Parts: sequence; structure tokens; C-alpha cells
Amino acid sequence: MDYQARTSDIHFILDKVLQAPVQLQGLQNLAEIEADLIQQVLEESGKFVSEVVAPLNRVGDEVGAKFDSGRVTMPPGFRDAYQAFWQAGWPALACATEDGGQGLPAVMEAVLYEMLSGANHGWTMAPGLLHGAYECIKHHASSELKAQYLEKVATGEWLATMCLTEPHAGSDLGLARTKAVVQGDGSYQINGTKIFISGGEHDLSDNIVHLVLARLPDSPPGPKGLSLYLVPKFYSDGTRSNVVCERIEEKMGLHGSPTCVMRFDDATGWLVGEAGRGLNAMFVMMNAARLHVALQGIGLLEAAWQKADAYAKERRQMRAPAQAGGRSKSAAEADFIIQHPAMRRILDTQRAWIDGGRVLAYRTAIELDMVKHHPDTERKKAAERWCSLVTPVLKSAWTAQAFSGGSECLQVFGGHGYVREWGIEQNVRDSRVAMIYEGTNEIQAIDLLVRKVLSDGGAGMALLMTSLEQVSEYYKNNSNIGNQYAGYMPKTLIKLTEELVLANRNNAELAFWVADDYLRAVALTLMAWAWQQIESAVDANKANSTLDTARWQQPAEALRYFVMPEFDMRVQIIQARLTQSKV
Amino acid sequence: MDYQARTSDIHFILDKVLQAPVQLQGLQNLAEIEADLIQQVLEESGKFVSEVVAPLNRVGDEVGAKFDSGRVTMPPGFRDAYQAFWQAGWPALACATEDGGQGLPAVMEAVLYEMLSGANHGWTMAPGLLHGAYECIKHHASSELKAQYLEKVATGEWLATMCLTEPHAGSDLGLARTKAVVQGDGSYQINGTKIFISGGEHDLSDNIVHLVLARLPDSPPGPKGLSLYLVPKFYSDGTRSNVVCERIEEKMGLHGSPTCVMRFDDATGWLVGEAGRGLNAMFVMMNAARLHVALQGIGLLEAAWQKADAYAKERRQMRAPAQAGGRSKSAAEADFIIQHPAMRRILDTQRAWIDGGRVLAYRTAIELDMVKHHPDTERKKAAERWCSLVTPVLKSAWTAQAFSGGSECLQVFGGHGYVREWGIEQNVRDSRVAMIYEGTNEIQAIDLLVRKVLSDGGAGMALLMTSLEQVSEYYKNNSNIGNQYAGYMPKTLIKLTEELVLANRNNAELAFWVADDYLRAVALTLMAWAWQQIESAVDANKANSTLDTARWQQPAEALRYFVMPEFDMRVQIIQARLTQSKV
Repeated sequence: MDYQARTSDIHFILDKVLQAPVQLQGLQNLAEIEADLIQQVLEESGKFVSEVVAPLNRVGDEVGAKFDSGRVTMPPGFRDAYQAFWQAGWPALACATEDGGQGLPAVMEAVLYEMLSGANHGWTMAPGLLHGAYECIKHHASSELKAQYLEKVATGEWLATMCLTEPHAGSDLGLARTKAVVQGDGSYQINGTKIFISGGEHDLSDNIVHLVLARLPDSPPGPKGLSLYLVPKFYSDGTRSNVVCERIEEKMGLHGSPTCVMRFDDATGWLVGEAGRGLNAMFVMMNAARLHVALQGIGLLEAAWQKADAYAKERRQMRAPAQAGGRSKSAAEADFIIQHPAMRRILDTQRAWIDGGRVLAYRTAIELDMVKHHPDTERKKAAERWCSLVTPVLKSAWTAQAFSGGSECLQVFGGHGYVREWGIEQNVRDSRVAMIYEGTNEIQAIDLLVRKVLSDGGAGMALLMTSLEQVSEYYKNNSNIGNQYAGYMPKTLIKLTEELVLANRNNAELAFWVADDYLRAVALTLMAWAWQQIESAVDANKANSTLDTARWQQPAEALRYFVMPEFDMRVQIIQARLTQSKV
Repeated sequence: MDYQARTSDIHFILDKVLQAPVQLQGLQNLAEIEADLIQQVLEESGKFVSEVVAPLNRVGDEVGAKFDSGRVTMPPGFRDAYQAFWQAGWPALACATEDGGQGLPAVMEAVLYEMLSGANHGWTMAPGLLHGAYECIKHHASSELKAQYLEKVATGEWLATMCLTEPHAGSDLGLARTKAVVQGDGSYQINGTKIFISGGEHDLSDNIVHLVLARLPDSPPGPKGLSLYLVPKFYSDGTRSNVVCERIEEKMGLHGSPTCVMRFDDATGWLVGEAGRGLNAMFVMMNAARLHVALQGIGLLEAAWQKADAYAKERRQMRAPAQAGGRSKSAAEADFIIQHPAMRRILDTQRAWIDGGRVLAYRTAIELDMVKHHPDTERKKAAERWCSLVTPVLKSAWTAQAFSGGSECLQVFGGHGYVREWGIEQNVRDSRVAMIYEGTNEIQAIDLLVRKVLSDGGAGMALLMTSLEQVSEYYKNNSNIGNQYAGYMPKTLIKLTEELVLANRNNAELAFWVADDYLRAVALTLMAWAWQQIESAVDANKANSTLDTARWQQPAEALRYFVMPEFDMRVQIIQARLTQSKV
């Protein structure tokens, strides 16, 4: 079955759990946001995703992008769908109105891309970098470049790439060797080879805008020597640049997205931002990309869950254990798969990760708008803190869950999961890449603990945790929703962080050993908080007869029984290393 | 890189940790086993695996088995390798000498298949069922059938299949509908469709012997109505049977093994064992198959580890954290991947699972020979208990680890892991199936807790745990190897089992909710015990200058810090459900 956008679930989270319209009301530079508008955009985008993009997922995998002598032909239907997509204005949703956009909040774009990724991860790779490229050009490019490229990228008429990785520079961009030499007219000639370039070449759009990290001849080694350049596939006079797609990779999955080796042969381009500040100019793109990848994880897990849930409800296999309600009373020889506790547990647990992830990712998108548009400095600071600390956690934990939880969903199908027929094995293959790109999950963990938490002595994390604790105390006192974990977890993390800050003074390696555990502990704390918000909203709306409370209560229970105990395990692992480092 | 059989690691476990030659000495019906013979067979089999089978792994994935009008053509090189394999006597290693075998202990066959699976999972599927088919025919077939088939199957000249699953009968074989009708000459006509038949059709061997579950017209519904039949591809007069391969499945991986849909159209076959006792006759095959699948998991994880370890030692990326010894002193811009704690942790953790799995799987194979050949009834009983309780744990936990740990090894490669080049993504795709076939991992957990542990009130598990506890107490008192877990874990499990037995009286569903956690807790206890044996053997042999003690100490440390904390988490999950069931 193809992915179906289930917009009522999403709407409940946006409107009732996060109260997005209230939060976003009155922000500068944003269109007037009302609940009706949110619902309308949701319905329209869901319709496009389900009807146009989702049906192309299988052909994207089976036919895939094809390479022939420098040209890449996308799978049947991909170009038409993309042309319809940008012409309907979807890429421009969250771009400023003066750039040809609709000025809607980032959270609406986040929801759109979550749905698109669930429907068709491969296809969605192409427009996935657009918004980051738009922000990068908007904030760093010269007015001449902006005049030529900004609106084309904002509307998505032209697609864009990020050309970072090189054969010997993956996680470590400082090793990049691509050269840039200035010309008499102020342009640059770029020479070098970039690898793993998603959508480096294709036939979806009439032009492609490459943003390329390269090194000036006199620049220092390492990341500080890198500058950013814009090199289009076609120049304004219609001539083609010397940017050559050498080949596309054979991959585990994601066959609907060409992963290109790109050669720049004296390709003419222009500097974006300051020389030597290329990583800085690209930073906005990379940050947007990380939230985007987290949304891919959530979307892919939703897609896997939809398939497994449908299969478990239609196929019978074995008797379920005899228990009131657990076993069907019919004369059938077997019960539905969903009646078996081991399978019910898998489905409810993934549901908990999806819905918790939605609350956190949408909230992060709202905070991104707060950073940009909120008038109050303190509120902006809090928003920056949230984005900085929560983004790596979302990227890492939810892409890991997309893969492991997708694999659990595959298990619901038994042998039928391993064959192509039901599409669940494609989901698992496709999702695996998200744990790697935009910074591997291990690098996200180091980013969180070493670069962000330890670097300010744990102060930022303590503030974040205290804010969660206050909210959870509020809910504990003001509703009949109790959560055994939400209060305890932030407190434990604050204390653990203090110990790590101390230990780090004498043992610089320790944090690198336990960064993954620390990130997991933070993820679970955020999950507990997110679900407390959900349960509270369900409780507040339980009189509403259209609300299916069991829909939310079952994953809440799975979370408490099967997910949360990992928190203590992670704390135990970190404590053991802390103890060892004192010996 | 291709898999390389590292026989010295295996030899250390067989000889020094398990003392296999001493254990097996003097067992009836087994050839005289001496350490020299074990080493010689190991070296020879390792050579065959590395030189003949491993180089065909990639072509097995890329070309795959091809289907055309009922015929299946295996990938280039597969038939020649198989012919060389059986002619060298490898399938007959552990078959009785009177059947054309070599009468070696089961553990030597276990080691051989672990290596084969690591080298080339797809190719190994074909001979993987041979020994089970041999045992099934030997113990249940009529003398006429034995005269025709036993030696051919023992030597592997003819390959064999297990035809169990049907389109609507996967985990639940009782739903099978294939019919058998007796003929005047005592033969049967078989009609029906079987799916997921590994090696149902191919060109590796000149004949294929199918063992088929089917139902007599007057048989009761459910599993008790099933009988087992033997239907060959070719009869003794050279005519072909009416067994048709309808198609082969498109799968996530394992492309080197054709997964066939087999149609039996009035195919003539013969009863094996008693009518209505088909599952019983097949039981020996299924049990052998489960240990075999656990060995696949171990072999595949070893293959993934070899790739990741080699890559991590040759590629530099980023600076490792500054710490004595952690960072290279050279002027290089980056350190080797293996110097990064997050990567070191992945590699050492997988090493812990591989070596612990080897100790347990080889021990189980030794216990299988005890069951068959030991003169003492009590010893036999203990061996039966070990095999019954440990086999589902090995199958489930080590196939799950092959997939998740293989995926961790992929992560070591970064983006290079997701592309085909290094072969690690094939490893992950191939390994996924082992969590499903021969009883899904969830069914293994139910088999363990519900069918085996609760059914005797926990008595068998208590005896097993007590035996581990005694051994671990012995090591605690008699060597300088302490293990913080080994004593505590068996005691905790015994107590937990008692509580589950009690709770089960009032709540038949409870065990089905926590069976996975229970199996994991047992797996970790067995791991702790296995590693205590390893550490003790390393300690006893540390004067031996050829022993690389760090090779074993690093995974032992990773086990204690990063693997063992899961035990308490599993106990916590079970305890919470126990508490809930009392409310």
C-alpha cells in the first residue's frame, strides 16, 4: 500500500498539543496564521503528497535514476510530479513574500516534508535542500547573485545542491581539496571532485544551482580555509558550465535519488559570503538540513507503521493468548496478527516514537521562527537554545528509530516483509542513509555533548531541562495526567551533566565514549515531555466525541513500559564510565 | 574485501575455552577427536571457505539467481564451488561413517557453517539444510527410502529442501492445506503450493530431495493433521516429478539463494515417519536449522566486523580526542577512524557478541553430541536441557545482533557504507532474513518462555541458571578473573522466573508481552558466562607469547560497559508488567 497522509493526526498535534496558531500569532514577517489556514494548507498538501508523490515510490526504487554519459534520467513520473509541485507553490511555502514565497511559518514546511519523505524518500531528496539553499543565498550572496538565483530557488523552479564531501573528506570537511582561483572579472574557476552529491544531475528542473565548498590557493589548511561558491548547471546566457556528473552510486536504497560524483573542470562560479567563511555560510543550510533529516526519519517510520498496521489488521496467524478481549471469539482457526502482544507492542512503540517526534520536530520548527521573528531577546535566546540542543537529538534518535523501528515493522510481516511485494523492505533500505548523511549520528552526539553541552559548562542544557521540568510539574499539578518519568528525568540529566562537566576537565576522552548514551538520555527525556503534552491535550479534549482517545493512550502506555526503561540504562552506562575515570 | 576465515580465533575458543577435545573424547559413534585433528579440519575448511566460497559473495548479490520458465540458473561460479564442496566431503563431516560420512562431532560442522555463512550467506543456504534432511531421513524414513536417498543426502551429492510454508501458513504451520492422497502402490500424490522454499529449484546438484508437509484427506485440522512426505525432483528412473518452480521472490537481499514458490501437481512422493506425525519428523530438522541460523548470525557479524575493522584501520578522518595514546603524534591532518571512541566502541561491542556467541553456539553443538552419544542418562538430560533452552536464545539474539551490529559496522564507513563498493550494505541486507526464518525471533521468545520455561514451572531454567552460577562462582574463587555480572544474573533470573510462573496462573497474556525481554535477559546472562570462560582461558594462557591478550580484553571491557546494562533494563520492563498484573 502507498503512504497516505493522515492529516487529522498531525492537525491534532499542531493545534491541540502545540497550539501552533496561538504561538505563532503576531510574529513579524509571517502571514497571519489561524487554525483554519493551517488546516487548509495541511489538507491540500496531504492531498498532493498522497495522490501525486506517494504512488511513485515503488517505481523510484525499481527503476531508479539512470546514468548515461553524464546525463541522469529520473524514474518515470518524477519530472511531471516535480513540475506540478513547484508550480503549485509548495517549495515556496515558508519563503518570504518578497522573494516569491508565501510567508508561512517554518512548521508548515516541516509538516509538508515529513509527509513527502514518508510518501517517497527518493523523490523528496531533490527539493529537500531547496529551503536551505534559499536561506544561504538570501543571507550570504551578493545582490547580483540574488537577482539571478534567489527567486528561482525560492519557488523551486531551479533545484539546488550542497557540494561538500570529497573522496577523502566526509565527516571531516576540513580535508577538502577542491580549488578556487579568482579570475579577472571577479568570478572563480573551480576544480575538484565532489562525491555523494544528492541530485547533482537530473532532469527534474531546467537548471541546477550548486553550492560548492572550495579552497583558495593561499588559504590555510583545515576548515577555516574553505569558501563557498555558487556554480549553476546553466549560465544566464544558456551555456552549460563545466560541471560534469561522472557517475551515480549503486546504493543500498534511495534509488529514486541520484547520488552523484561531480567533477568541476575549470567551472566558473561566484563567491557566496566571505572568503574563508564558507562553512559559516553553509551553516544555515546544514542546520535546516538536520531538522529536515529528522523529519525524514519521522515520515519514514510513519510509512512503515502504516504498512505494518494495515497488514496486522488484515492477516490472521496463530491463536492469540487466551485472555479477556485478547482473542477473537469467532470459529476462525487463527487470530489477527495485531491481537498478538509481541506485534501490538511493536506497533504501539513505533507510534510513540512517531507522535513524540512530531511534537518535538514541529516545536523545533516553531522555535526556528521564534529565532527569526520574535521581538523579545530573551525569548529568542531560549529559542536558539532549543534549536541548538534539540536538533542533533532529533536527527540522531529519530533516524535511528526510522531504521530500527522500520525493521520492527518489517518483522510484523514475517517472511512477507523480506520480499519486495509489500514495500516494507524498501522502507528499511531507504531509511538507513538518514543515520549517515548531514553528519553521522555519532557526530550528532559529539556535537550535542562536547560542542554544545560541555562547552558552556552545562548551563544551556540545565536551562532546557529546567524548562521541561517546570512544564511537567505544571501538568502534574494541573491535570490528572501523571507521568512517572517527566519530572525525574530532567533532574537526573542536570546532575549527570554536572558530573560530566567536572570529569571532562581531567579526561577529555570520556565524553566521546558516552556521547551516544547522553544523546539517548536526552531524547528519552524529550519524549517523556512530548508525551506529557500529548496526554494532557487528549485529556483536555476527551469530551470531543470525534477524538479517539485509545489511539493516543495505547502508544502512551507502550512508551512507559517499553521505551522509558532505556533511560536508566543510559544513565548507568555513563555512571560506570564516570566511576572508571575517577579510579 | 572478502571474508577471511580466521581459524586461530576459533581454535582458541574450541581448544582453550571449551576444551572440546577433552569433552568429546570417548563418545560413542564419534571418531577419535584430538586437538590436532580439530586444528587440521579447521585449517582445511577455512582454506576452502576463504578461497572458493568467499570470492563468490558479491556476484551472488549482483547477478543473483535467475528464473526462466521453471528453471533457476545460479550465479556464475556457484555450481562449480558446490560440486567441489561436496566432492571434498564437507557436507558429510558430521554424518555417520556407515552413511558415507566422516563421523566427526557436530561442533566441527557448526564451525564450518559459521564460516561459510560469513563468507557467502546466499551460497550457503543451499547446503544449509542438508544435515537436517539427513537426520530426518535417517531417523524417520523407511528402509527403501533410506536405501535410495540417505547416502546421497549425507554426502551432499543431492541437495534437500524443507517445504513447510504456504501462502496463508507461515508462523502457523497448522493452517497448511497441501493435500496427500494415498495410491495403490503405497505412494502418495501431493497437491498444493509451498512458498519461501530456499533452493526449491537450482542447478547446483543433479537432484533435489524435497521434504514436504501435507495433509491426508481424513486428517484433523491443525498441526496434528500434518504428515511428512519425500518428493524428489527426479525419480530413480530419471523421470522428472510434477514439482514445478513457479517463480522466485524479489528480496531485500540473499540474492544468491533462490526463494521459490513450488507447486506440487499430483507429484508422487512417499511418507516419512508416521501419518499425522509430520511435524515430529521434521522437528529434528527444524532444531538443527535453528542452531544453524544462529551460526549464520555469528558468521555474518564476523564478516561485517572484518570489513569495518579493516576500514577503520586504514582510513583517517578527523582528530581523535586529545588523550594519552588516543591520538596519533604524526603530522597527519586526521587520525584513523579506529582511534575515535565512538567507532572503537562499535567494533569492540560486536567482537564481544561474536566471541560470546561462538562459545555458546559451539557449546550447544557439543551438547547435541552429548544428547546423542553420551552414555550417562543424567548428562544426557542436562545436554537436552541446554539445547532446548539455549537454542532459541542463540537464534533470536544473535540474528538480531547480526542485523543491528552489522548496521553499526556499516556506520563505521560513513557514506561509503551505504554504497555497494565495500560490500557492507549487502551484509546488512542479507542478514535481515535470519531474524525471520526458522521461526521469527518473537516466536523463539515465546518458545523459550511459554513453551519451555513456564511449562515446567521454571524448573529447567532454574537448573540451567544454577549450573551457570556454580561455574561462575568457581571462576570467581579460583582465578583472578572477576565478573561483576555472572553471579548476579543467574540469581536474578531464577527469581524473576518464579514470579512469572506465579503470575502466569492468573494472567495468560503477561508472558507474551515480556517474552522478548526475558529472552534478552537470558541471552545476556549466557554472554556473561561465556565471557567469563573466555577471560579465564586468556588468563590461564597469558604466558603463551603468541596469545594477543588485548584482542580478548578489549571486547570483554566493551561487554561490561556497554552491553551488560541492558540486563537490568530488561528486568525492569518485566517487573513493571508483573506489578501491573497484580493491580
